[in-house]
Amino acid sequence: MRALLIAGVVLFLAHSLCAQVEAQQTLMPMPASVHAGNGELVIDRSFRVSVNGNDPVVERGIRRFLQQLSLETGVMFIETPGASSNATLQIQCDHGSEKVQKLGDDESYVLVVTNTGAKLTAPTPLGVLHGLETMLQMERAGTKGFAISAVTIQDQPRFAWRGLLIDVGRHFIPLEVLKRNLNAMGAAKMNVLHWHLYDNEGFRIESKRFPKLQAEGSDGQYYTQEEIREFVEFAHDRGIRVVPEFEMPGHSRSMFVGYPELASGTGPYRVEPGAPEAAMDPTRDETYKFLDKFLDEMTKLFPDEYVHIGGDEVNGHEWDTNPKIQAFMHAHGMKTNQDLQAYFNQKVQTILSKHHKVMIGWDEVLHPDLPKRVVVQSWRGQESLATAAQQGYRGLLSFGYYLDLMWPASRHYSVEPMSGRAASLSAEEKSRILGGESCMWSEWITPENIDSRIWPRNAAVAERLWSPAEVQDTSSMYARMDAFSWRLQWLGMKHRSALDSGLGRMVVTSDMEALQNLAEVVEPVKDYARMDSVKGVWDFRAPLVRMVDVVRPESEQARRFHDSVEAYLKSGAKDRVAENQIRTTLMTWRDNDAKLRPQLDHSFLLQELGPLSADLSMLGSSGLFALDYLERSAPSPALWRAQQSLMLDSAASAKADLLLMVVGPIRQLIDASGGGKTADTTQP
Amino acid sequence: MRALLIAGVVLFLAHSLCAQVEAQQTLMPMPASVHAGNGELVIDRSFRVSVNGNDPVVERGIRRFLQQLSLETGVMFIETPGASSNATLQIQCDHGSEKVQKLGDDESYVLVVTNTGAKLTAPTPLGVLHGLETMLQMERAGTKGFAISAVTIQDQPRFAWRGLLIDVGRHFIPLEVLKRNLNAMGAAKMNVLHWHLYDNEGFRIESKRFPKLQAEGSDGQYYTQEEIREFVEFAHDRGIRVVPEFEMPGHSRSMFVGYPELASGTGPYRVEPGAPEAAMDPTRDETYKFLDKFLDEMTKLFPDEYVHIGGDEVNGHEWDTNPKIQAFMHAHGMKTNQDLQAYFNQKVQTILSKHHKVMIGWDEVLHPDLPKRVVVQSWRGQESLATAAQQGYRGLLSFGYYLDLMWPASRHYSVEPMSGRAASLSAEEKSRILGGESCMWSEWITPENIDSRIWPRNAAVAERLWSPAEVQDTSSMYARMDAFSWRLQWLGMKHRSALDSGLGRMVVTSDMEALQNLAEVVEPVKDYARMDSVKGVWDFRAPLVRMVDVVRPESEQARRFHDSVEAYLKSGAKDRVAENQIRTTLMTWRDNDAKLRPQLDHSFLLQELGPLSADLSMLGSSGLFALDYLERSAPSPALWRAQQSLMLDSAASAKADLLLMVVGPIRQLIDASGGGKTADTTQP
Repeated sequence: MRALLIAGVVLFLAHSLCAQVEAQQTLMPMPASVHAGNGELVIDRSFRVSVNGNDPVVERGIRRFLQQLSLETGVMFIETPGASSNATLQIQCDHGSEKVQKLGDDESYVLVVTNTGAKLTAPTPLGVLHGLETMLQMERAGTKGFAISAVTIQDQPRFAWRGLLIDVGRHFIPLEVLKRNLNAMGAAKMNVLHWHLYDNEGFRIESKRFPKLQAEGSDGQYYTQEEIREFVEFAHDRGIRVVPEFEMPGHSRSMFVGYPELASGTGPYRVEPGAPEAAMDPTRDETYKFLDKFLDEMTKLFPDEYVHIGGDEVNGHEWDTNPKIQAFMHAHGMKTNQDLQAYFNQKVQTILSKHHKVMIGWDEVLHPDLPKRVVVQSWRGQESLATAAQQGYRGLLSFGYYLDLMWPASRHYSVEPMSGRAASLSAEEKSRILGGESCMWSEWITPENIDSRIWPRNAAVAERLWSPAEVQDTSSMYARMDAFSWRLQWLGMKHRSALDSGLGRMVVTSDMEALQNLAEVVEPVKDYARMDSVKGVWDFRAPLVRMVDVVRPESEQARRFHDSVEAYLKSGAKDRVAENQIRTTLMTWRDNDAKLRPQLDHSFLLQELGPLSADLSMLGSSGLFALDYLERSAPSPALWRAQQSLMLDSAASAKADLLLMVVGPIRQLIDASGGGKTADTTQP
Repeated sequence: MRALLIAGVVLFLAHSLCAQVEAQQTLMPMPASVHAGNGELVIDRSFRVSVNGNDPVVERGIRRFLQQLSLETGVMFIETPGASSNATLQIQCDHGSEKVQKLGDDESYVLVVTNTGAKLTAPTPLGVLHGLETMLQMERAGTKGFAISAVTIQDQPRFAWRGLLIDVGRHFIPLEVLKRNLNAMGAAKMNVLHWHLYDNEGFRIESKRFPKLQAEGSDGQYYTQEEIREFVEFAHDRGIRVVPEFEMPGHSRSMFVGYPELASGTGPYRVEPGAPEAAMDPTRDETYKFLDKFLDEMTKLFPDEYVHIGGDEVNGHEWDTNPKIQAFMHAHGMKTNQDLQAYFNQKVQTILSKHHKVMIGWDEVLHPDLPKRVVVQSWRGQESLATAAQQGYRGLLSFGYYLDLMWPASRHYSVEPMSGRAASLSAEEKSRILGGESCMWSEWITPENIDSRIWPRNAAVAERLWSPAEVQDTSSMYARMDAFSWRLQWLGMKHRSALDSGLGRMVVTSDMEALQNLAEVVEPVKDYARMDSVKGVWDFRAPLVRMVDVVRPESEQARRFHDSVEAYLKSGAKDRVAENQIRTTLMTWRDNDAKLRPQLDHSFLLQELGPLSADLSMLGSSGLFALDYLERSAPSPALWRAQQSLMLDSAASAKADLLLMVVGPIRQLIDASGGGKTADTTQP
């Protein structure tokens, strides 16, 4: 009996461990606490939900949950409203929803799933919404049907402010696209959309008081006030606050087209490419009268307590060259443009206070005269966040979370708000660090590619801001991000499918495989390299239809190939399965240029890809030679490796604003073929 | 000088030929007449459209055209309304649009594109819409930018009736999905949506007079009358007539749930799976009073002159077993159920005539008593179409165009309405063959997979019905269909992307490649094999989430692999590029099972794929051996080939309702490796 009992315990442990691993493979962000249970809850036609009370946000949330669950399983659920003790999922929510969601609202929830049912309890509807997203993430095809593994999850966010900035100024993004991104944010438990509503290149929101703002400051693409109200409600239903940004005194040239009197220069102003930078005139009373009326109108559209006024990158040229402004500064004892901007910020802060709003500004607003109520958003570094917190300001981190820089998810993931100098702040100072925001600046963004620029990488930022600081394993993050990415397709996200349609625009041919092969191993250049490569004036109206506009910011194929090569070399070049896989991939690349070459000349969009295509084939070829040396355990000649190294250096350089992402693992193969560590272990 | 002149002519011819080939690579359906011109029309921001008059259908069509062109090129066009002699595209339309589109309306157009501009002329707005679709199909990334090759196209349809039937009875299809399919139909120049609005399993249209029809005859999923009206307008804008089908006296069990008095049996009636077949009672006056009121209400929603009454597959059991019906038949001298149905059809036809509608019915309505005005739609064969035409009836062909049978596009393409006995009809009789309709019966259809079941194969039917009879080249059709398929993505069609999301439902893992590899070379079983394989009762409510539900009806990969093998063998096994490609593919397959195997056991949806996965790996392995024999020009042993043949036979059989589509080309490789014809040509 004893042996049997022990076996039982071992089995139990193994099963329990397995369920835990399964749950953790698909959860993103990782909850604060996950404990696997026994068995699983099968999801079939009998699945029912009950809830106490009749809060509208909760009810709509449940309806969306059931629709989504139905879509993902193909099972039709019959809605039976009201409380029922027989329901599969029983929801208990202590409080009803507030008309306006507030910073710091309780978002916690407890979810207990057993093989007979599930119970979700939360103090507020926000917790219910998060718990439902967690359940959706755990739904999977099990051995007997769709199921959720038994589990106990206790969860709450680490930071209260988990935002995504979307810039709609440089390129207009239709509401339909923004809405599906709100759904994706909800899935990733983000709770703030920071809406960068205009910039030099376009004013995107209807003003009834100042209709020339949208009429002359845009190409006709803007949101009406009715649309804005509906959109804010849509976000509220998903537990997302909408924080608008009204950028001033810089980055606002589009306002000056219709109202040049706001600006510090003589105009006329244009949104067209190449128009000079401009800034508001902080010295005239009329400027503040305008802003008072403007912000009065605008802030009524956005119930959230916070309003962002931008305040970054003010180009001082107009101030420096305007004698009246210079005289004003002199008369008021202002030594620098920063002093003038601080004066402006205080005036604006007073206006916003009058309208019961709390002001947020970018790093540059930090100035000794700045009221302590203002929130500082850091784009320039973690240092300024710590400085602000020490000085008594609350802050948000965006440095390190710029999605437009095309970094890999792992790099964003490693950016920790509490690291660096922040780590040594006092508890009180630390509490001023509210969270962070990823930023989707739209210089190179279109409605077609925006999903792929934000997702799935943004889920890594979402996890950094939600999950405990200890959650740091990058390979676990990638595995879960991949699962999250596939699931996002069920929310209608086009982050995966956009690549296909983008390639279809470049060439119309019956066989797209060669082009796909190339597209899947390149990434856009990083940081501001693309902007730097622009010859002359950046034309924000130019069609964004090049390969760099459609490929994914982070190549899954390259990551996988890298992992395969690592595994193969780690095995001492003995893992035949990995070797076969690598060989097949290398052969595909080697032969790819010959297949792609005939297509390249016919399309102006493909012509620039010639060198990349040639490089990929060379990489495939070299990799195969290296693999042969490794397979035969015969060290490759040093001269050959030196030649290959030159080729690799050349292949690593950017071409057509793209980087070939498989140079690294090929270099590893070639290095290893010389009989270094790998050869040592294979030949005793 | 003379040599130079000749060279010039040759260049001119080559260029002209090239442009012609280019245009023809992307046009589907192929126009009646295409003549290539010189040069190309560049499409950039200056592109403008002018049109005579201000017909609303034309204007909305132009707006959609510009939006689509903008989407496909990324170029923003500025709309400048009204006529302008400077416009890039000048449209001349002789007549305004009619409130109701009619069978036989002139749909012709002439499109002339030069390197300075384009001119589109048409007698009616329908021709303008078709011409704009043709222009969109010719848009491509040229060497200097987006462009349309110079061309003169004179075009009109071969048949006046080019329809697609969509069955929304068995599975409800939301209007959003139907609308995008209307857009796709417009792109393929189809002009009739035959809307099969209900069937035994569900009644999908709101009746205000008989509300129990939708309330009790559906699961709550139906179209309101307001939605129907808006949808019919949407179709009208795209040159598509909406012909409703009100199926009777069979296939209408869902009507009897709320109104059992209509039926011939005693009821009660249910829509649930396994409920017995039923039929209306043609002997009671009340039946016709109901139908009169019902059709009065319904026909007002559909302005089209034609109304389909179904009339197919009447299960006579209820008639046979009802003594009152038997007595009625005896009293009226009716010998068969067909006689009784003919009596019913005449009564219904009289009702429809009263409501100014022309009746259509399936084959079975053909009976000596049938009025000649009725249109007969043939699902049983081309013979009955010819018979009907000889007897003076007008007819439509649907036999051979059933998309639910999962045939390859080439097979549908080869079905010619005027072939067989129809070929020897008189000119007058031939004129009675109005055209045809492809049919999307929805037994195995969901809102997610319907796009992929209809497209791109439906484009082959569309071409058969539009283009001249001489347009028959299958490989040209496939090349153009592939291009058409890629372009459809820009209309929001999910026929390509649905595969990914469907696979993501089966398993959530970071590497989906092995599953994708398998999914891309299998097809659903053909004809009614899946229905035949259902054990017990077909449950139309079962989730359609198996591999057979998500894979494409026709595997592109298999077709390409087949083409590669053909090319390789044709070269006498000497084409090294083709050989490499084949080898890489075979290696991928050989190694695929090892990668996929660990995933299979964890998901109930993947378990059934084990044998298929093993077969694919065996096929890869055998193919590689065959390739080695061919490469070395050493004939393979006969015994080995015999063994392989057994394996191939087994791999060719259906498993999990799926067929592996690469058995054929592997068999070709193995046969050739024996040193047959191929070996003969390689070894002189």
